[in-house]
Amino acid sequence: MMEIGEKLKKAQILQLLKKDRNQFVSGEAICRHIGVSRTAVWKHIRSLREEGYIIDAATHRGYSLTYIPDRLYPDEIADGLNTEFMGGRVYYHQSLESTNREARALASGGVPGGSLVVAEEQAGGRGRMGRGWFSPKGLGLWCSLILRPEVQPNEAPPITMLTAVAVASAVEKVTGVAPGIKWPNDLLVGGKKICGILTEMVAEMEKVDYLVVGVGINVNIPFEDFPEELRETATSLCLEKNELVSRLHLLKQFLREFEFYYQKWINEGFAPVLEEWKKRCINLGCPVRISTSREVWEGLAEDVDSDGALLLRMPGGSVQRFMAGEVSLRNS
Amino acid sequence: MMEIGEKLKKAQILQLLKKDRNQFVSGEAICRHIGVSRTAVWKHIRSLREEGYIIDAATHRGYSLTYIPDRLYPDEIADGLNTEFMGGRVYYHQSLESTNREARALASGGVPGGSLVVAEEQAGGRGRMGRGWFSPKGLGLWCSLILRPEVQPNEAPPITMLTAVAVASAVEKVTGVAPGIKWPNDLLVGGKKICGILTEMVAEMEKVDYLVVGVGINVNIPFEDFPEELRETATSLCLEKNELVSRLHLLKQFLREFEFYYQKWINEGFAPVLEEWKKRCINLGCPVRISTSREVWEGLAEDVDSDGALLLRMPGGSVQRFMAGEVSLRNS
Repeated sequence: MMEIGEKLKKAQILQLLKKDRNQFVSGEAICRHIGVSRTAVWKHIRSLREEGYIIDAATHRGYSLTYIPDRLYPDEIADGLNTEFMGGRVYYHQSLESTNREARALASGGVPGGSLVVAEEQAGGRGRMGRGWFSPKGLGLWCSLILRPEVQPNEAPPITMLTAVAVASAVEKVTGVAPGIKWPNDLLVGGKKICGILTEMVAEMEKVDYLVVGVGINVNIPFEDFPEELRETATSLCLEKNELVSRLHLLKQFLREFEFYYQKWINEGFAPVLEEWKKRCINLGCPVRISTSREVWEGLAEDVDSDGALLLRMPGGSVQRFMAGEVSLRNS
Repeated sequence: MMEIGEKLKKAQILQLLKKDRNQFVSGEAICRHIGVSRTAVWKHIRSLREEGYIIDAATHRGYSLTYIPDRLYPDEIADGLNTEFMGGRVYYHQSLESTNREARALASGGVPGGSLVVAEEQAGGRGRMGRGWFSPKGLGLWCSLILRPEVQPNEAPPITMLTAVAVASAVEKVTGVAPGIKWPNDLLVGGKKICGILTEMVAEMEKVDYLVVGVGINVNIPFEDFPEELRETATSLCLEKNELVSRLHLLKQFLREFEFYYQKWINEGFAPVLEEWKKRCINLGCPVRISTSREVWEGLAEDVDSDGALLLRMPGGSVQRFMAGEVSLRNS
């Protein structure tokens, strides 16, 4: 492990090289700007190369950064992020069992709200209801945010719909593709899933201790890489766009959008977020089937109330209210 | 650590000695009944003595159990408990930082619902809202139950009021003292606190993973043992009864009552439990002050609705609904 002072120096050297990308920066200039020795510069350059940065070196000319790897390194995420606290701390891993699990462990240990856990791959990625989540290396955004809103447990469920809005908005701004939201929080493009959200809560009855919001976005997964059983129901942004999408840009935009809607929720309540959610929802007004852990219901998805509950108009005319469940479009 | 088979043998020997308490049981009879060697019997007797059991031994006569220590050993709790699953597993500790914390760790590791964590003392016992809970050694019941009801997070809050009912009922049956309940879940005798309850929840938005219900009952704490700042506001059962109360009997009765009301809740819903709660509540109809994390309100505690929320009639005539907060009687 590098010390924090050393990490900062390394980040500063990277900044300097990025500013004059593809041009040579002299070793002497680096030493002067950062206040380190030639030996230290060389050590940090080697460390950056080990992380996948390609840095040319030439005698008397210095160093030139020619390639930034497609990795979600904390320094890259912090670069130009401009959020107040979302992503304020980034815990980066090449591989994790599950980013949610790691985030829960960190949150129990007291890390502040806004902290982000990100992994290049998940060995045991989890979806809702104990299902798995396919999380191949380097091809998606597999990350979890730790949040500490001062709310009661019954006030927490909107966070999941808020997250769906933030992801949809970020995806639209970065790729031009506008995902639809299936109640409560699945994101679909052309009827196929592009993002799943898993929110977990640790609380006393009076007060939430922390929330962990896990997000899995299929970014650059090629068709052939999807397991066969997912090919009918899942897709990725690169498949829809027909080009690779920068995971880094998408993650940073997600953090900005998330912070925007999160502060809206804290300051103005759920209503303005819900309005945005409804604009993007693809279920409302449609006949749907909804499966809860106990039963299956069919009816018309008439509306969503101020708590985010789905209001289902039954064939007999009565209205049934659902806080949770799995929705499928009927006859589809 | 003893093996499970060995533990069972030890428990069987203890049973045999209890059946003929204060009489001698021959070593040979023990060997024959339990199916162990003389050496094994001796080893188990020694182990029981280390736990505080007083067992006399006399040549040619055998062993005689003359004293059972006031300890909450798993074998003593299991003896005649007769519940279906509450206390089905008991995790016993001389001392813990907090039984809730230990229970959460066990629950994360997958132990079944109904498991009980009990400690003779807590070094850092916790109450609601991050406050401490005075938990001196051997003088109270400091324990936590792990529960895995198949409910959504918004259906979980009644468990706290259910616990208050179970404790009140157990205390009344064992001691004759009938504690009153202060909304939502403090138990008082003569206006002083006798029991605190701290419920914690780990959940997805759709589904509770587990609940931990922590209970602290002041059983045999003498007046002088209370820290000065608690003497005005807290009491113990032995102070109210003027005699020592068996913690073991109380704990077993609590587990029975808890199972009874828990199954009522699962099978019939919250209504019958709430009815019992209302009978024991001392706030309803009284002017109260309620402090939430954000504000302080004053009004008449008019009723509790079907979710357990307190309905406060305001001086202006409107009704305000509270899911959480700290209640104090006004002008008192």
